[in-house]
Amino acid sequence: MIQTDILIIGAGPTGLFTVFEAGLLKLKCHLIDALPQPGGQLAELYPKKPIYDIPGYPEVLAGDLVTNLMEQIKQFQPGFTLGETAETIDKLEDGSFIVTTNKGTQHHAKAIAIAGGLGTFEPRKPLLKDVEFYEKEDRGIEYFVKDPELFRNKKIVISGGGDSALDWSIFLSDVASEVTLVHRRNEFRGALDSVEKVQELKNEGKIKLITPAEVVGFKGSERIESVDIEINGARMNIETDYFIPLFGLTPKLGAIANWGLEIEKNAIKVNNALDYQTNIEGIYAIGDVNTYPGKLKLILCGFHEATLMCQSVYNRLNPGKKYVLKYTTVSGVDGFDGTRKEAEKAVVKSIE
Amino acid sequence: MIQTDILIIGAGPTGLFTVFEAGLLKLKCHLIDALPQPGGQLAELYPKKPIYDIPGYPEVLAGDLVTNLMEQIKQFQPGFTLGETAETIDKLEDGSFIVTTNKGTQHHAKAIAIAGGLGTFEPRKPLLKDVEFYEKEDRGIEYFVKDPELFRNKKIVISGGGDSALDWSIFLSDVASEVTLVHRRNEFRGALDSVEKVQELKNEGKIKLITPAEVVGFKGSERIESVDIEINGARMNIETDYFIPLFGLTPKLGAIANWGLEIEKNAIKVNNALDYQTNIEGIYAIGDVNTYPGKLKLILCGFHEATLMCQSVYNRLNPGKKYVLKYTTVSGVDGFDGTRKEAEKAVVKSIE
Repeated sequence: MIQTDILIIGAGPTGLFTVFEAGLLKLKCHLIDALPQPGGQLAELYPKKPIYDIPGYPEVLAGDLVTNLMEQIKQFQPGFTLGETAETIDKLEDGSFIVTTNKGTQHHAKAIAIAGGLGTFEPRKPLLKDVEFYEKEDRGIEYFVKDPELFRNKKIVISGGGDSALDWSIFLSDVASEVTLVHRRNEFRGALDSVEKVQELKNEGKIKLITPAEVVGFKGSERIESVDIEINGARMNIETDYFIPLFGLTPKLGAIANWGLEIEKNAIKVNNALDYQTNIEGIYAIGDVNTYPGKLKLILCGFHEATLMCQSVYNRLNPGKKYVLKYTTVSGVDGFDGTRKEAEKAVVKSIE
Repeated sequence: MIQTDILIIGAGPTGLFTVFEAGLLKLKCHLIDALPQPGGQLAELYPKKPIYDIPGYPEVLAGDLVTNLMEQIKQFQPGFTLGETAETIDKLEDGSFIVTTNKGTQHHAKAIAIAGGLGTFEPRKPLLKDVEFYEKEDRGIEYFVKDPELFRNKKIVISGGGDSALDWSIFLSDVASEVTLVHRRNEFRGALDSVEKVQELKNEGKIKLITPAEVVGFKGSERIESVDIEINGARMNIETDYFIPLFGLTPKLGAIANWGLEIEKNAIKVNNALDYQTNIEGIYAIGDVNTYPGKLKLILCGFHEATLMCQSVYNRLNPGKKYVLKYTTVSGVDGFDGTRKEAEKAVVKSIE
């Protein structure tokens, strides 16, 4: 069982920064996220787009903000359970919690920080027969590219008309033995350079394009062996090892909605007058997932909420101990990995 | 009279970022600060020191953070009243305010944001006879170097043993005709390279060093003509145009303490459950200057408080108007100067 002080559900920017503030208080963190990589929406939905309202950054690409946050927290050695969703929670007699994911991974934590953003990003699935069979482990349907190596020298069919479909087609054209991109329109919607790059790869024969068309069925006994494609009313069948439908993600609050937390309009109510704790002691909700009077769903607000929450956890775990806040400029930052960051000290030196 | 939507008292990081959040809501800001430049403590006390707890910055020099914030807000064209302190406030019948500084500058604003940090940084003054006479406008005592050109080809005496005394001695040795540095010890306390640079300039004869010594008196009828210095019990007198005592700054809440605001332990009480408003409607307090249960005096908390406060001001000024929050990545940022920042738009394009 994974042991930690604070279990953070959601590895978006708010969840990531929590690791830093907890680390300053010597609290260890572990993060669970449904996506295959940290960063939440920023990494999955718009890594190449600029954000203008992060304080101190006139402009920062979403993906770079994630990179910077990962760099900022690395000395506090957070643990990650990625590609899994938190399903059940049990409160033990000592006030600690056990959280189990959809894949059965168990986490034991002294406090829970739900930093789930708009919810778990669940892929929109094709409404086709047998999808439930083939989406099971390694039977051929993959909704995310977790590890591109899975597709090394394999035949793949990607479906979709947006940035994800374009970008993964480009990326995997160097990895897979054959990339077929199927889209129900001739027009793609995405960054200009991505569309142009796919055009170029198509001209070079590195991407096979089938439009306007739809994948309408699968063949294969143990796993996918081929997909049926409907194009202009006609049918064709092409051999493939994998089918990757990239139709976008919808956020769902998911299993957390059944944890007994007070929910209002798909968000978790918290005590914003103190520490962003929910109605269950020891469970906090921070960032876009929570709600309170005047709430704004902004990253910078999540950073503040995470900070006050960590102080509250510290006080709960160390009753009676007086915590004295020191500025990082003054105290430096001691990592759990033995590293130390500190400002250059003043010297006392006579001048002759 | 200066007209603005939000008058911000204090141009530290929280005050500066307020301009951005207000700007997104089309509200104009003007800032008052006692210091000669924006940035508060960051610019005045430790511009070259790193901060480690600004979210998304594994490390940032305090001075660079100020530069970045100034860059981030520049399209919203904030006004500045620098080197003055807010003295009196009058609430008009329409709910707006007039704030007058110690130099008589008047500001008319629809809302007030006190972002005063630890207070006005007031210089520690030498306890000497006639200080009050010579510190008046251009009679020879200067506590800040607002404009180095004031000292061009003049004789100056700097007193103090810390970074400010060292750094201004170095800087002004190229501007003034004669720089004398007086300190009551032989040892200086500061960045190693500053101490070494002063040593070098002393060896080259560009800085005259008198230690261990103290300035103990002034001569001059209209303005300072010379200072008396005590060194090892003996007295000497040296001619000078200016005396610049750099003994550090102490933060004082100052005149704001008399504005009828609820004060607790030298900080202003606010409603943290909603919008960081004080007990006087239309006056908010954000950043280190405020207090509430669980308050942490951190820059990142000030950013959050500023943001919620701006929303509250918007709602007060636009009753009944529904504000719909949009992400800057989606909506872009429209400056008051006609500039626009926006994310590259997706194209819809067919692939042949």
